[in-house]
Amino acid sequence: MARMLDGMERLLRGEVAPPPAATLIGMRLASFAAGEAVVVLDAGAAHGNPMGTVQGGILAALADAAMGWAYMTTLGEGESYTTLEMKVNFLRPARSGPLRARARVLSAGRTIGLVECAVLGEGDKLVAHAVSTCMVLRGEQAAGR
Amino acid sequence: MARMLDGMERLLRGEVAPPPAATLIGMRLASFAAGEAVVVLDAGAAHGNPMGTVQGGILAALADAAMGWAYMTTLGEGESYTTLEMKVNFLRPARSGPLRARARVLSAGRTIGLVECAVLGEGDKLVAHAVSTCMVLRGEQAAGR
Amino acid sequence: MARMLDGMERLLRGEVAPPPAATLIGMRLASFAAGEAVVVLDAGAAHGNPMGTVQGGILAALADAAMGWAYMTTLGEGESYTTLEMKVNFLRPARSGPLRARARVLSAGRTIGLVECAVLGEGDKLVAHAVSTCMVLRGEQAAGR
Amino acid sequence: MARMLDGMERLLRGEVAPPPAATLIGMRLASFAAGEAVVVLDAGAAHGNPMGTVQGGILAALADAAMGWAYMTTLGEGESYTTLEMKVNFLRPARSGPLRARARVLSAGRTIGLVECAVLGEGDKLVAHAVSTCMVLRGEQAAGR
Repeated sequence: MARMLDGMERLLRGEVAPPPAATLIGMRLASFAAGEAVVVLDAGAAHGNPMGTVQGGILAALADAAMGWAYMTTLGEGESYTTLEMKVNFLRPARSGPLRARARVLSAGRTIGLVECAVLGEGDKLVAHAVSTCMVLRGEQAAGR
Repeated sequence: MARMLDGMERLLRGEVAPPPAATLIGMRLASFAAGEAVVVLDAGAAHGNPMGTVQGGILAALADAAMGWAYMTTLGEGESYTTLEMKVNFLRPARSGPLRARARVLSAGRTIGLVECAVLGEGDKLVAHAVSTCMVLRGEQAAGR
Repeated sequence: MARMLDGMERLLRGEVAPPPAATLIGMRLASFAAGEAVVVLDAGAAHGNPMGTVQGGILAALADAAMGWAYMTTLGEGESYTTLEMKVNFLRPARSGPLRARARVLSAGRTIGLVECAVLGEGDKLVAHAVSTCMVLRGEQAAGR
Repeated sequence: MARMLDGMERLLRGEVAPPPAATLIGMRLASFAAGEAVVVLDAGAAHGNPMGTVQGGILAALADAAMGWAYMTTLGEGESYTTLEMKVNFLRPARSGPLRARARVLSAGRTIGLVECAVLGEGDKLVAHAVSTCMVLRGEQAAGR
């Protein structure tokens, strides 16, 4: 775990590059704690769908990143993980401006975990809500991915 | 509907610009028919997570786009829609190369629709599977979005 | 709303019969407040799967009932509702004994709502977690169902 | 696998008792093949919600049973499984009469599987659609459940 959290600390301090997909979308890890992580995105015209609001898939990617980092804080040394599935409810249109995805691990079993995420927009209004099922990878599984 | 399908035809022919989020991620509408749509993405390093495979959120965005376009083919004149929720299962890691999201409307009620999507990678292997619940917007609702 | 809450009060006091499906499964409304409801089930051999633990579908039915009642507390006069979809994560096997499903409305828009539910077993351990998308029905829609 | 399929064959012929939860709800395995299973329920007043239609949780239990049996046909000797999560869309109200849940395995990896299910009512209309994520249990895991 130490190494994983250390990597996340260095990411926060800007000492390591964020994952390419995070850079592409423009989202970044803002903070984390045991079982929690916050990822932010300054939503702009580039994230829009034809209606001019943030595309649902962008919100899903934002929630996915936050849930992944939150789950990573629960992993032990030599462990990795994969996301088995995620589900997102889109509750109100998100327009340009800062979006904050706040993820929290609800259950962390030996192999399977459940993570939830609230995506908050202007005035901290709930823009989307997500849950995700994650699986710990160990040994060859962890090394092979 | 005529206008909606006409817009999608023009998009296919490159006469109108794709939605900004599609451009950002690099995905594009490849074909459509009644209740169906195919969206493709040439996945590369830019779409990667720290493990070097395509980030789950990118796959979610790809499926979301395909399901949205498939659902749009079922709408009538003056109707718009919103995606209420989506769920994605990630079945195997996707590496660089072409990804094809094939969406199909399973049910189109007066107000609520259900759409599914298969995301296929190398060798047409099933990389991800998604379902999405959509809602038709009419009148002021449609105009206001 | 008054009438809806009044009906739930009378159900709590045993003055009206519970819905048939609740009776069949053996679950009952235990309490409710604005945006919340608790449904309980004394799980026994009759609820078991071949492995001798409570069948997942029974847990889903329990969560569905709790989320439905929680959502009902948010409805106005003359309104009804339908559940569009639900999703349940099964986190640990549930054995015989009391199960408590605690539902809470996360978002209640004019038409669409999101409800979550924690199903707790022995020692208040999280046995299952569910989310549900509900839709308000009004006028003819409400009367027709 | 042989033993698992043999058990399902004997269940079909009525030589072994169905799981208690199936008996409680009144559903039964009607047929199966590799990666597929059909479960039926004669829905009646006992399965109703306050609106007089079949409770969503009953439909979820029906789909869960069908998806579980479909997944069981893919297991090898000494393997068992658990359902990690399921998601159900309710597409139209189901009234009294026969309901048929037709499940099909979409993906069966070494550890994780994805199963889908169509619940059909009168006139083979699609009443509900479900997907489920299952996990194979082996060795002690399988024995311990």
